[in-house]
Amino acid sequence: MIIEMRPDSTLADLGRVISFVENLGFTPRPHHGAERTVIGVMDAAEPDLAPVAELAGVARISPLQSKGKLVSRDFRTEPTVVKVGRLRIGGPRFVVMAGPCAVESEEQLLATAKAVVSSGGHVLRGGAYKPRTSPYSFQGLKEEGLRLLALAREKTDLPIITEVVAPDLVPLVSRYADILQIGARNMQNYALLEAVGKARTPVMLKRGLMSTIDELLLAAEYIMSNGNEQVLLCERGIRTFETATRNTLDISAVPVLHERTHLPIIVDPSHAAGLVQYVPAMALAAAAAGADGIIIETHPDPAKALSDGPQALTFPMLNDLMKQLGTIAAAVGKPLVT
Amino acid sequence: MIIEMRPDSTLADLGRVISFVENLGFTPRPHHGAERTVIGVMDAAEPDLAPVAELAGVARISPLQSKGKLVSRDFRTEPTVVKVGRLRIGGPRFVVMAGPCAVESEEQLLATAKAVVSSGGHVLRGGAYKPRTSPYSFQGLKEEGLRLLALAREKTDLPIITEVVAPDLVPLVSRYADILQIGARNMQNYALLEAVGKARTPVMLKRGLMSTIDELLLAAEYIMSNGNEQVLLCERGIRTFETATRNTLDISAVPVLHERTHLPIIVDPSHAAGLVQYVPAMALAAAAAGADGIIIETHPDPAKALSDGPQALTFPMLNDLMKQLGTIAAAVGKPLVT
Amino acid sequence: MIIEMRPDSTLADLGRVISFVENLGFTPRPHHGAERTVIGVMDAAEPDLAPVAELAGVARISPLQSKGKLVSRDFRTEPTVVKVGRLRIGGPRFVVMAGPCAVESEEQLLATAKAVVSSGGHVLRGGAYKPRTSPYSFQGLKEEGLRLLALAREKTDLPIITEVVAPDLVPLVSRYADILQIGARNMQNYALLEAVGKARTPVMLKRGLMSTIDELLLAAEYIMSNGNEQVLLCERGIRTFETATRNTLDISAVPVLHERTHLPIIVDPSHAAGLVQYVPAMALAAAAAGADGIIIETHPDPAKALSDGPQALTFPMLNDLMKQLGTIAAAVGKPLVT
Amino acid sequence: MIIEMRPDSTLADLGRVISFVENLGFTPRPHHGAERTVIGVMDAAEPDLAPVAELAGVARISPLQSKGKLVSRDFRTEPTVVKVGRLRIGGPRFVVMAGPCAVESEEQLLATAKAVVSSGGHVLRGGAYKPRTSPYSFQGLKEEGLRLLALAREKTDLPIITEVVAPDLVPLVSRYADILQIGARNMQNYALLEAVGKARTPVMLKRGLMSTIDELLLAAEYIMSNGNEQVLLCERGIRTFETATRNTLDISAVPVLHERTHLPIIVDPSHAAGLVQYVPAMALAAAAAGADGIIIETHPDPAKALSDGPQALTFPMLNDLMKQLGTIAAAVGKPLVT
Repeated sequence: MIIEMRPDSTLADLGRVISFVENLGFTPRPHHGAERTVIGVMDAAEPDLAPVAELAGVARISPLQSKGKLVSRDFRTEPTVVKVGRLRIGGPRFVVMAGPCAVESEEQLLATAKAVVSSGGHVLRGGAYKPRTSPYSFQGLKEEGLRLLALAREKTDLPIITEVVAPDLVPLVSRYADILQIGARNMQNYALLEAVGKARTPVMLKRGLMSTIDELLLAAEYIMSNGNEQVLLCERGIRTFETATRNTLDISAVPVLHERTHLPIIVDPSHAAGLVQYVPAMALAAAAAGADGIIIETHPDPAKALSDGPQALTFPMLNDLMKQLGTIAAAVGKPLVT
Repeated sequence: MIIEMRPDSTLADLGRVISFVENLGFTPRPHHGAERTVIGVMDAAEPDLAPVAELAGVARISPLQSKGKLVSRDFRTEPTVVKVGRLRIGGPRFVVMAGPCAVESEEQLLATAKAVVSSGGHVLRGGAYKPRTSPYSFQGLKEEGLRLLALAREKTDLPIITEVVAPDLVPLVSRYADILQIGARNMQNYALLEAVGKARTPVMLKRGLMSTIDELLLAAEYIMSNGNEQVLLCERGIRTFETATRNTLDISAVPVLHERTHLPIIVDPSHAAGLVQYVPAMALAAAAAGADGIIIETHPDPAKALSDGPQALTFPMLNDLMKQLGTIAAAVGKPLVT
Repeated sequence: MIIEMRPDSTLADLGRVISFVENLGFTPRPHHGAERTVIGVMDAAEPDLAPVAELAGVARISPLQSKGKLVSRDFRTEPTVVKVGRLRIGGPRFVVMAGPCAVESEEQLLATAKAVVSSGGHVLRGGAYKPRTSPYSFQGLKEEGLRLLALAREKTDLPIITEVVAPDLVPLVSRYADILQIGARNMQNYALLEAVGKARTPVMLKRGLMSTIDELLLAAEYIMSNGNEQVLLCERGIRTFETATRNTLDISAVPVLHERTHLPIIVDPSHAAGLVQYVPAMALAAAAAGADGIIIETHPDPAKALSDGPQALTFPMLNDLMKQLGTIAAAVGKPLVT
Repeated sequence: MIIEMRPDSTLADLGRVISFVENLGFTPRPHHGAERTVIGVMDAAEPDLAPVAELAGVARISPLQSKGKLVSRDFRTEPTVVKVGRLRIGGPRFVVMAGPCAVESEEQLLATAKAVVSSGGHVLRGGAYKPRTSPYSFQGLKEEGLRLLALAREKTDLPIITEVVAPDLVPLVSRYADILQIGARNMQNYALLEAVGKARTPVMLKRGLMSTIDELLLAAEYIMSNGNEQVLLCERGIRTFETATRNTLDISAVPVLHERTHLPIIVDPSHAAGLVQYVPAMALAAAAAGADGIIIETHPDPAKALSDGPQALTFPMLNDLMKQLGTIAAAVGKPLVT
């Protein structure tokens, strides 16, 4: 339930409403927006709060429209802006995260980090722990990969995003990463969602490749209901019958998510396309559709990449794409972060 | 097979190659591009043309990469530009087709046509024959609808596009329409594809919501192999498990199709989204991804539309969208037709 | 709307209700079942029939549950039994249709027809008109194929089922076929559905590979509302992301369809599987799930088949399958037709 | 790679081949089947083993056909039979696992366990840890649920299967469960797969609703390559566009899996259907298609179930289904365990 307070209500009114809800055995979660103050009551049981409507200062009470609660636009109308150092994601400017699929070596990672900086990118991505479909594929450099990411940050000042694949790795990965990534295969790994929900590092949650938009929102709700409200959502393609691309980028998820949630939306055209020649068109489409940013793969020598080489941009391709993105992002009123 | 001639070969060389192929019992289809002259041999059986490689003037012979032949970029490297009166579709400028899902009345259609003109649109769409999932739904005004479309063209000078639903209607609809539309449900109605292939009116072929990109190309091949090479392809959303939108716009079909075929690509965000609030973001994404145009639904009073009202833009929404489209289209180097 | 009459109502009551409905401008469709007499009113506009409830003999009026009307179990509770000569489809016994994908020659067809008879099959299938994804693939022997089918019937007494692909072919194909088949790609070819709806030959309607069960029912409604009530529905696999099989047999469609419609349900395991080694398991599953019959592909020499060879059973495989089917069909209380 | 030894080779030959492989730095995994002895070499890098073909006693070396290795029929031709106390799964008899979706109370669980016994079922299922799409849904009784399952086993002698949802819960759940279940959402939770791979309790791995058959096999490979070879695979429906059922049971997965792997195949018709009225038909189809068993949901009072009530059989329905299953299972030559 959402309890909306009247604009002219007092803090004393607010305090009485909160106490009243607590006395009923529920947990009130006040949220003070620029336009209105609301109190969410998120308990599993749908609480009978009818008497609350009679209290002084209460404008109205209403059920939540979406299945998620903390994620919902009903609860928080202003967009959430996730803060990563000086960088703002979800605000008035478009963000580009780029880097290799997997961290392979110091040389590979530092070369990539420099290319990201020089082309104008804002965040360095790179996988240290790689969840791979086959147990015999390269599984990542693990902690050594994290150390290399930290080194690249030190050299370039780029914040880093990297994936965490198990609950007991959350403390370790959080010591290195500026943003924790939850991969598509783990979108409904609830033990992991709870673990990152208890961390204080921002989280980027990727949509499962056969998950609905509402399921993505409920997965984000797991994170938020455990206390971490710094969540980015990432559309990375869904599984369909079409085989020309690795997955099908669901570009309509961008406006649908903006309607249903206040969380920032990132698009990953590299995993959606799976083939580098389609990545630029899809990156531009993401910017035009109103995404808050993209995350793309780039590699010094894609043909030699240990993971997902066919979808990685070369550095000159990244450079070209950044220029086109700058034009489109400005044209939709959300210029690149500078 | 594709026989590519050397740039310095002579017309006599060409004539000998063509005769040679004919004598083998096959049909040579020469195509003279700005960059090269090629001869396609499209017969069902894969012909053994090895001896042709020995003839004077032949640069090389190669199998076709794509399953389709006449549709293929291998066969024709320059883009096809479809001519509709003075309008060019598939050239350097972006085209907007707009109008109601169904023609309902003279008043509704003329009001819409005027709104399309005043907002800067280029083609008037409107269904006279409506293939509907239920036999009890409104099936269209039929020939009366065609007459109203012709009237609207007379008043506004907009070319018209309208659907044809059965082979025996092709002559009638061709008398009125500037572009014949084949709907998604009929993409593999081969009798209909052959009938429009024998017509001389340009055709817009919509992708079936169950169809792969290669199947769309092979359906276009049915039209082209019957003689009509003025074909537009239309991506209008595919069926997936996601239910937030009516279908899932496969935005990656735009770069994939541009790679595989020389035919122009139109995107229909209205049918893909199914809900008007998502249409503008998807229209802009289409322009950013490199589409040659869009086809969208608009209606004087969407709430009263007899068909697909929830996805129709009001006239003010159309006006706003055209302005944004103008900006994006210019930003990707393919400004709106003026 | 469905008007249900009381068991003790009189024919005079019935006549008054029918007149009353006609006077409102609607078309009453009485149906006299063993258990009850109902009057369907199927007009496009949802009629306001409240006053009918007051008439003598009326038990109750109720809206139709399913979107289809004539197809619905609400309207007709007893199963429809389609009559093909002495054969009954949809009754207490299980029916097997078998034959080649395409009619290729007299020799091939007669050999197959004899194998179908000797293994205990009931209907001979064979395509004379083949809708093929590519215009360059074998398109069938056309009328010569129909003549060969008629010859095979003459020699073996098996009724024949064959596909019709365009409205103007319906009269011709109806002269030869005992059952007209509408292929999956034409499930929503409404001009064709109307044409077979006006024929008097039973029709087997195949589900489109990306059509929902409700859309299949509405397509059947097109046929029935044009007057032909002898309709079989065929589940033949839907398109999913799984690539191990050609399509994914939706075995749950069998109980879902039995719940929603009175029409018989046939399963096509050959097109669903696409690979012969999986066909027997899926045929047995169909019988166990309660299908009324199956349609399968068999060929004297599958490796040389002009169409769909990899999914055709050899004759010994057909023979083995028929024995297993006999056991399963008996075990679920629906033994093979003898 | 697979190294196949000649039937007349000696143990000394075998020893030399194993040493040779080890000296190359790889891990040989000998497997002694009734028909042949093979040595799998599963290392991530594709080893160059050509010299091995020259060693005495080696019949031939060959690459693995499937992407998985330990799971593959190439590696082990005889079916794996999983032993759970006296029960055998994957052998000549059909197994039925039944119980509530979630353990709710001692009364509910004991009543269900007794109904399972009296209807002839073989394993009691029941969730103590429930991964739920929403964080506000009932999450299970957790360890108290495990204790109740152990109590039910004590009273009825039924082995128990229950889900484990996080790596750190594996030791606890293994103390209670006879079979560990990995749920569909966790099929690619690799940290969890590794944890159960190190346990010594048999595991039932459910196919993700977004996963291909090959991905299911590779997920099983994660478990097996960590040392636990007692793995059951479970088909539980995949996500498609059809909405009449909760998911679409991919019945063809049964023959496809039997062809590709030696592991037993269990079908879960309850989660696939989502609606109780379709469950019996799909259970019978599973038996007819050659599954090794089914897992179904039953509840004393489905309308009051805390989780998935609409898909739970009542006890009388379970009883009826067991009788029909007995008939079908016998008809396909795989009678119920007695």
